Amino acid sequence: MRFKDKLNNASKKNNSLLCVGLDVDLSKAPQYKSIFDFNKAIIDATKDLVCAYKPNIAFYEMYGAKGLEELIKTIEYIHKFDLPVILDAKRGDIGNSSAAYAKAVFEVYKADAVTVSPYMGEDSLKPFLDYKDKGVFVLCLTSNPGAKDFQHPIFKDIAKKFGNAGLVVGATRPEELKEIRKIAPNALLLIPGVGTQGGDLGSIVKIGGKNIIINASRSIIYSENPGEAAKKLRDEINEKIV
Amino acid sequence: MRFKDKLNNASKKNNSLLCVGLDVDLSKAPQYKSIFDFNKAIIDATKDLVCAYKPNIAFYEMYGAKGLEELIKTIEYIHKFDLPVILDAKRGDIGNSSAAYAKAVFEVYKADAVTVSPYMGEDSLKPFLDYKDKGVFVLCLTSNPGAKDFQHPIFKDIAKKFGNAGLVVGATRPEELKEIRKIAPNALLLIPGVGTQGGDLGSIVKIGGKNIIINASRSIIYSENPGEAAKKLRDEINEKIV
Repeated sequence: MRFKDKLNNASKKNNSLLCVGLDVDLSKAPQYKSIFDFNKAIIDATKDLVCAYKPNIAFYEMYGAKGLEELIKTIEYIHKFDLPVILDAKRGDIGNSSAAYAKAVFEVYKADAVTVSPYMGEDSLKPFLDYKDKGVFVLCLTSNPGAKDFQHPIFKDIAKKFGNAGLVVGATRPEELKEIRKIAPNALLLIPGVGTQGGDLGSIVKIGGKNIIINASRSIIYSENPGEAAKKLRDEINEKIV
Repeated sequence: MRFKDKLNNASKKNNSLLCVGLDVDLSKAPQYKSIFDFNKAIIDATKDLVCAYKPNIAFYEMYGAKGLEELIKTIEYIHKFDLPVILDAKRGDIGNSSAAYAKAVFEVYKADAVTVSPYMGEDSLKPFLDYKDKGVFVLCLTSNPGAKDFQHPIFKDIAKKFGNAGLVVGATRPEELKEIRKIAPNALLLIPGVGTQGGDLGSIVKIGGKNIIINASRSIIYSENPGEAAKKLRDEINEKIV
Protein backbone atom coordinates (compact mmCIF):
# COMPACT_ATOMS: atom_id res chain seq x y z
CA MET A 1 0.00 0.00 0.00
CA ARG A 2 1.19 3.56 -0.71
CA PHE A 3 2.73 5.36 2.27
CA LYS A 4 0.19 8.19 2.13
CA ASP A 5 -2.79 5.84 2.11
CA LYS A 6 -1.35 3.81 4.93
CA LEU A 7 -0.72 6.97 6.93
CA ASN A 8 -4.20 8.36 6.30
CA ASN A 9 -5.85 5.06 7.21
CA ALA A 10 -3.88 4.78 10.44
CA SER A 11 -4.49 8.41 11.29
CA LYS A 12 -8.26 8.01 10.84
CA LYS A 13 -8.54 4.66 12.55
CA ASN A 14 -6.54 5.78 15.59
CA ASN A 15 -7.71 9.41 15.45
CA SER A 16 -4.08 10.38 15.76
CA LEU A 17 -1.32 12.62 14.40
CA LEU A 18 1.16 11.10 16.82
CA CYS A 19 4.24 9.18 15.67
CA VAL A 20 6.30 7.30 18.24
CA GLY A 21 10.05 7.25 17.78
CA LEU A 22 11.58 3.83 18.39
CA ASP A 23 15.04 4.95 19.45
CA VAL A 24 15.90 2.43 22.08
CA ASP A 25 19.06 2.49 24.10
CA LEU A 26 18.99 -0.84 25.91
CA SER A 27 21.21 0.49 28.69
CA LYS A 28 18.20 2.63 29.69
CA ALA A 29 15.86 -0.36 29.57
CA PRO A 30 17.80 -3.22 31.11
CA GLN A 31 14.68 -5.29 31.76
CA TYR A 32 14.49 -6.19 28.03
CA LYS A 33 16.62 -8.88 26.45
CA SER A 34 16.62 -7.42 22.96
CA ILE A 35 15.71 -4.27 21.06
CA PHE A 36 12.86 -6.14 19.42
CA ASP A 37 11.44 -7.18 22.81
CA PHE A 38 11.55 -3.57 23.92
CA ASN A 39 9.97 -2.32 20.70
CA LYS A 40 7.28 -5.01 20.79
CA ALA A 41 6.24 -3.89 24.25
CA ILE A 42 6.04 -0.25 23.07
CA ILE A 43 4.15 -1.18 19.90
CA ASP A 44 1.68 -3.41 21.75
CA ALA A 45 0.96 -0.57 24.17
CA THR A 46 0.58 2.18 21.54
CA LYS A 47 -0.61 0.60 18.26
CA ASP A 48 -4.15 1.96 18.64
CA LEU A 49 -2.89 5.46 19.44
CA VAL A 50 -0.44 6.36 16.67
CA CYS A 51 -0.43 7.21 12.96
CA ALA A 52 3.12 5.89 12.42
CA TYR A 53 6.33 4.69 14.04
CA LYS A 54 9.74 6.22 13.44
CA PRO A 55 12.78 4.11 14.30
CA ASN A 56 16.05 6.05 14.05
CA ILE A 57 18.48 3.65 12.39
CA ALA A 58 21.44 5.02 14.40
CA PHE A 59 20.19 3.16 17.46
CA TYR A 60 20.20 -0.12 15.52
CA GLU A 61 23.51 0.40 13.72
CA MET A 62 25.24 0.78 17.06
CA TYR A 63 24.60 -2.94 17.52
CA GLY A 64 26.00 -3.84 14.09
CA ALA A 65 24.50 -6.53 11.85
CA LYS A 66 22.51 -7.90 14.79
CA GLY A 67 20.94 -4.47 15.29
CA LEU A 68 19.81 -4.32 11.68
CA GLU A 69 18.13 -7.70 12.08
CA GLU A 70 16.23 -6.31 15.08
CA LEU A 71 15.21 -3.31 12.97
CA ILE A 72 13.88 -5.52 10.17
CA LYS A 73 12.01 -7.68 12.71
CA THR A 74 10.52 -4.54 14.28
CA ILE A 75 9.34 -3.20 10.91
CA GLU A 76 7.79 -6.56 10.03
CA TYR A 77 5.93 -6.54 13.34
CA ILE A 78 4.59 -3.00 12.80
CA HIS A 79 3.35 -3.96 9.34
CA LYS A 80 1.15 -6.66 10.88
CA PHE A 81 -1.02 -3.82 12.18
CA ASP A 82 -1.04 -1.98 8.80
CA LEU A 83 0.82 0.94 10.37
CA PRO A 84 3.45 2.86 8.38
CA VAL A 85 7.12 3.01 9.31
CA ILE A 86 9.17 6.16 8.76
CA LEU A 87 12.82 5.20 8.92
CA ASP A 88 14.78 8.12 10.34
CA ALA A 89 18.04 7.73 8.45
CA LYS A 90 18.97 11.23 7.20
CA ARG A 91 20.69 9.73 4.17
CA GLY A 92 21.96 11.62 1.15
CA ASP A 93 24.89 10.97 -1.22
CA ILE A 94 25.84 11.17 -4.90
CA GLY A 95 23.47 9.40 -7.30
CA ASN A 96 24.70 5.82 -7.34
CA SER A 97 25.32 5.79 -3.57
CA SER A 98 21.90 7.31 -2.82
CA ALA A 99 20.36 4.67 -5.07
CA ALA A 100 22.02 2.00 -2.92
CA TYR A 101 20.71 3.69 0.26
CA ALA A 102 17.20 3.92 -1.20
CA LYS A 103 17.32 0.24 -2.05
CA ALA A 104 18.43 -0.57 1.50
CA VAL A 105 15.73 1.55 3.11
CA PHE A 106 12.77 0.59 0.95
CA GLU A 107 13.60 -2.91 -0.31
CA VAL A 108 15.75 -4.45 2.41
CA TYR A 109 14.46 -2.82 5.61
CA LYS A 110 11.05 -2.34 3.94
CA ALA A 111 10.30 1.07 5.44
CA ASP A 112 7.33 3.01 4.07
CA ALA A 113 9.07 6.37 4.28
CA VAL A 114 12.50 7.80 5.05
CA THR A 115 14.14 11.01 6.21
CA VAL A 116 16.90 12.38 3.96
CA SER A 117 19.50 15.14 4.25
CA PRO A 118 19.52 17.74 1.46
CA TYR A 119 23.07 19.10 1.75
CA MET A 120 24.25 17.38 -1.44
CA GLY A 121 21.41 18.83 -3.50
CA GLU A 122 18.51 17.75 -5.64
CA ASP A 123 20.22 14.95 -7.57
CA SER A 124 21.27 13.32 -4.29
CA LEU A 125 17.60 12.92 -3.26
CA LYS A 126 16.20 11.82 -6.62
CA PRO A 127 16.83 8.08 -6.09
CA PHE A 128 14.61 8.24 -2.97
CA LEU A 129 11.91 10.38 -4.63
CA ASP A 130 11.81 7.93 -7.54
CA TYR A 131 10.06 5.42 -5.28
CA LYS A 132 6.65 6.94 -5.98
CA ASP A 133 4.71 4.84 -3.46
CA LYS A 134 7.08 5.67 -0.62
CA GLY A 135 7.31 8.75 1.56
CA VAL A 136 10.35 11.04 1.70
CA PHE A 137 10.87 13.68 4.39
CA VAL A 138 13.62 16.17 3.61
CA LEU A 139 15.43 17.81 6.54
CA CYS A 140 14.37 21.44 6.36
CA LEU A 141 14.82 23.02 9.78
CA THR A 142 15.86 20.74 12.61
CA SER A 143 15.07 20.86 16.33
CA ASN A 144 18.63 20.90 17.71
CA PRO A 145 20.67 24.00 18.65
CA GLY A 146 22.93 23.53 15.61
CA ALA A 147 20.01 24.27 13.26
CA LYS A 148 21.11 27.90 13.44
CA ASP A 149 24.61 27.13 12.10
CA PHE A 150 23.98 26.40 8.41
CA GLN A 151 20.21 26.06 7.81
CA HIS A 152 19.45 29.78 7.50
CA PRO A 153 18.30 30.91 5.01
CA ILE A 154 18.47 27.79 2.83
CA PHE A 155 15.66 26.06 4.70
CA LYS A 156 13.36 28.27 2.63
CA ASP A 157 14.82 27.02 -0.66
CA ILE A 158 14.43 23.50 0.62
CA ALA A 159 10.80 24.11 1.54
CA LYS A 160 10.24 25.48 -1.96
CA LYS A 161 12.00 22.64 -3.75
CA PHE A 162 10.70 19.72 -1.73
CA GLY A 163 7.31 20.99 -0.55
CA ASN A 164 5.67 18.29 -2.65
CA ALA A 165 7.52 15.61 -0.73
CA GLY A 166 7.55 15.82 3.06
CA LEU A 167 9.62 18.14 5.23
CA VAL A 168 11.18 17.73 8.67
CA VAL A 169 10.66 20.82 10.81
CA GLY A 170 11.62 20.92 14.47
CA ALA A 171 8.93 21.78 17.03
CA THR A 172 11.39 24.13 18.68
CA ARG A 173 11.11 26.63 15.75
CA PRO A 174 7.54 28.06 15.61
CA GLU A 175 8.60 31.32 13.95
CA GLU A 176 10.29 29.60 11.04
CA LEU A 177 7.51 27.02 10.88
CA LYS A 178 5.21 29.90 9.97
CA GLU A 179 7.43 30.83 7.04
CA ILE A 180 7.71 27.22 5.93
CA ARG A 181 3.92 26.83 5.99
CA LYS A 182 3.58 29.89 3.79
CA ILE A 183 6.10 28.57 1.27
CA ALA A 184 4.79 25.00 1.29
CA PRO A 185 1.12 25.15 2.31
CA ASN A 186 0.44 21.54 1.34
CA ALA A 187 3.62 19.87 2.54
CA LEU A 188 3.30 16.99 4.94
CA LEU A 189 5.40 18.03 7.93
CA LEU A 190 7.18 15.61 10.21
CA ILE A 191 7.72 17.48 13.47
CA PRO A 192 10.08 16.10 16.11
CA GLY A 193 11.03 17.86 19.29
CA VAL A 194 7.87 18.24 21.39
CA GLY A 195 8.84 15.91 24.21
CA THR A 196 12.30 15.86 25.76
CA GLN A 197 13.48 18.65 23.45
CA GLY A 198 10.79 21.03 24.73
CA GLY A 199 8.91 22.36 21.66
CA ASP A 200 5.55 24.01 22.39
CA LEU A 201 2.72 21.83 21.09
CA GLY A 202 0.07 24.55 21.04
CA SER A 203 1.84 26.93 18.68
CA ILE A 204 3.09 24.09 16.50
CA VAL A 205 -0.34 22.61 15.87
CA LYS A 206 -1.91 26.04 15.37
CA ILE A 207 0.66 26.96 12.71
CA GLY A 208 1.13 23.54 11.14
CA GLY A 209 -2.53 22.62 10.68
CA LYS A 210 -3.71 19.05 10.20
CA ASN A 211 -1.18 17.93 7.60
CA ILE A 212 1.45 17.16 10.23
CA ILE A 213 2.95 14.23 12.07
CA ILE A 214 4.09 14.99 15.59
CA ASN A 215 6.90 12.74 16.72
CA ALA A 216 7.86 11.95 20.31
CA SER A 217 10.50 9.40 21.23
CA ARG A 218 12.16 9.45 24.64
CA SER A 219 9.21 11.07 26.46
CA ILE A 220 7.08 8.07 25.49
CA ILE A 221 9.31 5.03 25.21
CA TYR A 222 11.05 5.62 28.55
CA SER A 223 7.86 6.63 30.33
CA GLU A 224 6.69 4.27 33.08
CA ASN A 225 3.51 3.69 31.12
CA PRO A 226 4.14 4.25 27.39
CA GLY A 227 0.50 3.56 26.46
CA GLU A 228 -0.74 6.21 28.86
CA ALA A 229 1.92 8.71 27.79
CA ALA A 230 1.04 8.16 24.11
CA LYS A 231 -2.69 8.50 24.78
CA LYS A 232 -2.14 11.71 26.73
CA LEU A 233 -0.04 13.26 23.97
CA ARG A 234 -2.37 12.10 21.19
CA ASP A 235 -5.34 13.65 22.98
CA GLU A 236 -3.44 16.85 23.70
CA ILE A 237 -2.61 17.19 19.98
CA ASN A 238 -6.26 16.61 19.05
CA GLU A 239 -7.47 19.18 21.58
CA LYS A 240 -5.14 21.83 20.22
CA ILE A 241 -6.38 21.17 16.69
CA VAL A 242 -10.06 21.66 17.36
CA MET B 1 47.06 3.74 16.32
CA ARG B 2 45.79 7.28 15.63
CA PHE B 3 44.22 7.80 12.22
CA LYS B 4 46.69 10.52 11.27
CA ASP B 5 49.72 8.41 12.17
CA LYS B 6 48.34 5.44 10.32
CA LEU B 7 47.65 7.60 7.27
CA ASN B 8 51.10 9.20 7.32
CA ASN B 9 52.82 5.85 7.72
CA ALA B 10 50.87 4.34 4.84
CA SER B 11 51.40 7.40 2.70
CA LYS B 12 55.18 7.28 3.24
CA LYS B 13 55.54 3.54 2.92
CA ASN B 14 53.54 3.40 -0.32
CA ASN B 15 54.63 6.83 -1.55
CA SER B 16 50.98 7.53 -2.19
CA LEU B 17 48.15 10.05 -1.76
CA LEU B 18 45.72 7.68 -3.43
CA CYS B 19 42.70 6.24 -1.64
CA VAL B 20 40.69 3.51 -3.30
CA GLY B 21 36.92 3.55 -2.83
CA LEU B 22 35.49 0.11 -2.13
CA ASP B 23 32.00 0.67 -3.51
CA VAL B 24 31.21 -2.67 -5.00
CA ASP B 25 28.06 -3.44 -6.89
CA LEU B 26 28.22 -7.21 -7.31
CA SER B 27 25.99 -7.07 -10.38
CA LYS B 28 28.94 -5.39 -12.12
CA ALA B 29 31.36 -8.05 -10.90
CA PRO B 30 29.47 -11.35 -11.26
CA GLN B 31 32.66 -13.42 -11.08
CA TYR B 32 32.85 -12.86 -7.30
CA LYS B 33 30.77 -14.81 -4.80
CA SER B 34 30.71 -12.13 -2.10
CA ILE B 35 31.54 -8.49 -1.52
CA PHE B 36 34.43 -9.54 0.67
CA ASP B 37 35.90 -11.74 -2.09
CA PHE B 38 35.69 -8.82 -4.47
CA ASN B 39 37.24 -6.42 -1.94
CA LYS B 40 39.97 -8.87 -1.05
CA ALA B 41 41.02 -9.11 -4.69
CA ILE B 42 41.13 -5.30 -4.95
CA ILE B 43 43.02 -4.92 -1.67
CA ASP B 44 45.57 -7.63 -2.56
CA ALA B 45 46.22 -5.88 -5.88
CA THR B 46 46.54 -2.34 -4.46
CA LYS B 47 47.74 -2.55 -0.83
CA ASP B 48 51.25 -1.35 -1.71
CA LEU B 49 49.92 1.56 -3.75
CA VAL B 50 47.43 3.38 -1.51
CA CYS B 51 47.40 5.57 1.61
CA ALA B 52 43.87 4.46 2.62
CA TYR B 53 40.70 2.66 1.57
CA LYS B 54 37.25 4.23 1.56
CA PRO B 55 34.25 1.88 1.57
CA ASN B 56 30.94 3.69 1.09
CA ILE B 57 28.56 2.03 3.53
CA ALA B 58 25.57 2.49 1.18
CA PHE B 59 26.87 -0.36 -0.97
CA TYR B 60 26.94 -2.66 2.06
CA GLU B 61 23.60 -1.58 3.55
CA MET B 62 21.88 -2.52 0.31
CA TYR B 63 22.61 -6.13 1.28
CA GLY B 64 21.22 -5.70 4.81
CA ALA B 65 22.77 -7.34 7.88
CA LYS B 66 24.81 -9.65 5.63
CA GLY B 67 26.28 -6.61 3.89
CA LEU B 68 27.40 -5.11 7.20
CA GLU B 69 29.16 -8.35 8.06
CA GLU B 70 31.05 -8.14 4.76
CA LEU B 71 31.98 -4.55 5.61
CA ILE B 72 33.35 -5.53 9.01
CA LYS B 73 35.28 -8.42 7.46
CA THR B 74 36.71 -6.07 4.83
CA ILE B 75 37.85 -3.54 7.44
CA GLU B 76 39.48 -6.29 9.50
CA TYR B 77 41.33 -7.47 6.42
CA ILE B 78 42.59 -3.95 5.60
CA HIS B 79 43.84 -3.52 9.17
CA LYS B 80 46.10 -6.55 8.73
CA PHE B 81 48.22 -4.35 6.46
CA ASP B 82 48.18 -1.38 8.88
CA LEU B 83 46.27 0.68 6.35
CA PRO B 84 43.59 3.17 7.50
CA VAL B 85 39.91 2.87 6.59
CA ILE B 86 37.80 5.96 5.93
CA LEU B 87 34.16 4.91 6.15
CA ASP B 88 32.15 7.04 3.75
CA ALA B 89 28.88 7.32 5.67
CA LYS B 90 27.86 10.99 5.51
CA ARG B 91 26.16 10.71 8.88
CA GLY B 92 24.83 13.56 10.99
CA ASP B 93 21.91 13.80 13.44
CA ILE B 94 20.95 15.34 16.78
CA GLY B 95 23.34 14.66 19.66
CA ASN B 96 22.20 11.32 21.05
CA SER B 97 21.61 9.87 17.56
CA SER B 98 24.98 11.07 16.29
CA ALA B 99 26.58 9.50 19.36
CA ALA B 100 24.98 6.19 18.36
CA TYR B 101 26.27 6.58 14.78
CA ALA B 102 29.77 7.43 16.03
CA LYS B 103 29.73 4.33 18.20
CA ALA B 104 28.65 2.22 15.21
CA VAL B 105 31.32 3.64 12.92
CA PHE B 106 34.29 3.62 15.27
CA GLU B 107 33.52 0.85 17.76
CA VAL B 108 31.42 -1.65 15.81
CA TYR B 109 32.69 -1.32 12.23
CA LYS B 110 36.10 -0.16 13.58
CA ALA B 111 36.75 2.44 10.91
CA ASP B 112 39.68 4.83 11.45
CA ALA B 113 37.85 7.82 10.00
CA VAL B 114 34.40 8.77 8.76
CA THR B 115 32.69 11.28 6.49
CA VAL B 116 29.89 13.34 8.07
CA SER B 117 27.23 15.72 6.78
CA PRO B 118 27.15 19.18 8.40
CA TYR B 119 23.56 20.26 7.63
CA MET B 120 22.42 19.84 11.24
CA GLY B 121 25.20 22.02 12.60
CA GLU B 122 28.12 21.89 14.95
CA ASP B 123 26.46 19.97 17.81
CA SER B 124 25.48 17.20 15.39
CA LEU B 125 29.14 16.54 14.57
CA LYS B 126 30.56 16.82 18.08
CA PRO B 127 30.02 13.13 18.99
CA PHE B 128 32.24 12.17 16.04
CA LEU B 129 34.88 14.81 16.76
CA ASP B 130 35.03 13.65 20.37
CA TYR B 131 36.84 10.51 19.22
CA LYS B 132 40.21 12.26 19.26
CA ASP B 133 42.21 9.41 17.72
CA LYS B 134 39.85 9.05 14.80
CA GLY B 135 39.55 11.09 11.63
CA VAL B 136 36.47 13.09 10.65
CA PHE B 137 35.89 14.51 7.16
CA VAL B 138 33.09 17.06 6.96
CA LEU B 139 31.25 17.43 3.63
CA CYS B 140 32.24 20.89 2.43
CA LEU B 141 31.75 21.06 -1.33
CA THR B 142 30.79 17.86 -3.07
CA SER B 143 31.59 16.59 -6.56
CA ASN B 144 28.04 16.03 -7.86
CA PRO B 145 25.94 18.51 -9.89
CA GLY B 146 23.65 19.16 -6.87
CA ALA B 147 26.56 20.79 -4.99
CA LYS B 148 25.38 24.07 -6.51
CA ASP B 149 21.88 23.77 -4.96
CA PHE B 150 22.52 24.49 -1.27
CA GLN B 151 26.29 24.49 -0.62
CA HIS B 152 26.95 28.07 -1.72
CA PRO B 153 28.09 30.07 0.16
CA ILE B 154 27.98 28.00 3.34
CA PHE B 155 30.83 25.75 2.24
CA LYS B 156 33.07 28.65 3.32
CA ASP B 157 31.62 28.68 6.85
CA ILE B 158 32.10 24.94 6.98
CA ALA B 159 35.73 25.26 5.87
CA LYS B 160 36.22 27.86 8.61
CA LYS B 161 34.52 25.85 11.35
CA PHE B 162 35.90 22.41 10.56
CA GLY B 163 39.26 23.21 8.97
CA ASN B 164 40.96 21.54 11.93
CA ALA B 165 39.17 18.31 11.16
CA GLY B 166 39.16 17.08 7.57
CA LEU B 167 37.05 18.37 4.70
CA VAL B 168 35.51 16.65 1.68
CA VAL B 169 35.98 18.73 -1.47
CA GLY B 170 35.03 17.41 -4.91
CA ALA B 171 37.72 17.32 -7.59
CA THR B 172 35.20 18.84 -10.00
CA ARG B 173 35.42 22.26 -8.24
CA PRO B 174 38.96 23.70 -8.65
CA GLU B 175 37.82 27.34 -8.33
CA GLU B 176 36.15 26.79 -4.98
CA LEU B 177 38.99 24.53 -3.87
CA LYS B 178 41.22 27.59 -4.13
CA GLU B 179 38.95 29.51 -1.75
CA ILE B 180 38.77 26.56 0.64
CA ARG B 181 42.57 26.26 0.71
CA LYS B 182 42.82 29.93 1.60
CA ILE B 183 40.32 29.59 4.44
CA ALA B 184 41.72 26.31 5.76
CA PRO B 185 45.39 26.14 4.73
CA ASN B 186 46.14 23.18 6.99
CA ALA B 187 43.00 21.11 6.52
CA LEU B 188 43.40 17.54 5.37
CA LEU B 189 41.28 17.35 2.22
CA LEU B 190 39.56 14.19 1.02
CA ILE B 191 39.01 14.69 -2.70
CA PRO B 192 36.70 12.36 -4.61
CA GLY B 193 35.70 12.80 -8.22
CA VAL B 194 38.89 12.45 -10.30
CA GLY B 195 37.96 9.20 -12.05
CA THR B 196 34.52 8.50 -13.46
CA GLN B 197 33.28 11.94 -12.37
CA GLY B 198 35.93 13.69 -14.45
CA GLY B 199 37.75 16.13 -12.12
CA ASP B 200 41.09 17.46 -13.42
CA LEU B 201 43.95 15.99 -11.43
CA GLY B 202 46.54 18.59 -12.40
CA SER B 203 44.71 21.65 -11.10
CA ILE B 204 43.51 19.81 -8.01
CA VAL B 205 46.97 18.75 -6.88
CA LYS B 206 48.45 22.15 -7.71
CA ILE B 207 45.87 23.93 -5.58
CA GLY B 208 45.45 21.34 -2.83
CA GLY B 209 49.12 20.75 -2.08
CA LYS B 210 50.38 17.66 -0.29
CA ASN B 211 47.87 17.52 2.54
CA ILE B 212 45.28 15.76 0.41
CA ILE B 213 43.85 12.32 -0.19
CA ILE B 214 42.70 11.67 -3.75
CA ASN B 215 39.94 9.09 -3.92
CA ALA B 216 39.02 7.02 -6.94
CA SER B 217 36.45 4.24 -6.84
CA ARG B 218 34.82 2.97 -10.02
CA SER B 219 37.74 3.85 -12.31
CA ILE B 220 39.93 1.48 -10.32
CA ILE B 221 37.76 -1.28 -8.90
CA TYR B 222 36.01 -2.04 -12.19
CA SER B 223 39.19 -1.69 -14.25
CA GLU B 224 40.44 -4.88 -15.93
CA ASN B 225 43.61 -4.61 -13.89
CA PRO B 226 42.96 -2.71 -10.63
CA GLY B 227 46.59 -2.91 -9.52
CA GLU B 228 47.80 -1.35 -12.75
CA ALA B 229 45.07 1.32 -12.69
CA ALA B 230 45.95 2.22 -9.08
CA LYS B 231 49.68 2.36 -9.85
CA LYS B 232 49.05 4.59 -12.86
CA LEU B 233 46.91 7.02 -10.86
CA ARG B 234 49.25 7.04 -7.85
CA ASP B 235 52.20 7.87 -10.11
CA GLU B 236 50.23 10.53 -11.98
CA ILE B 237 49.38 12.22 -8.66
CA ASN B 238 53.04 12.11 -7.59
CA GLU B 239 54.20 13.56 -10.90
CA LYS B 240 51.80 16.49 -10.61
CA ILE B 241 53.04 17.24 -7.12
CA VAL B 242 56.73 17.51 -7.90
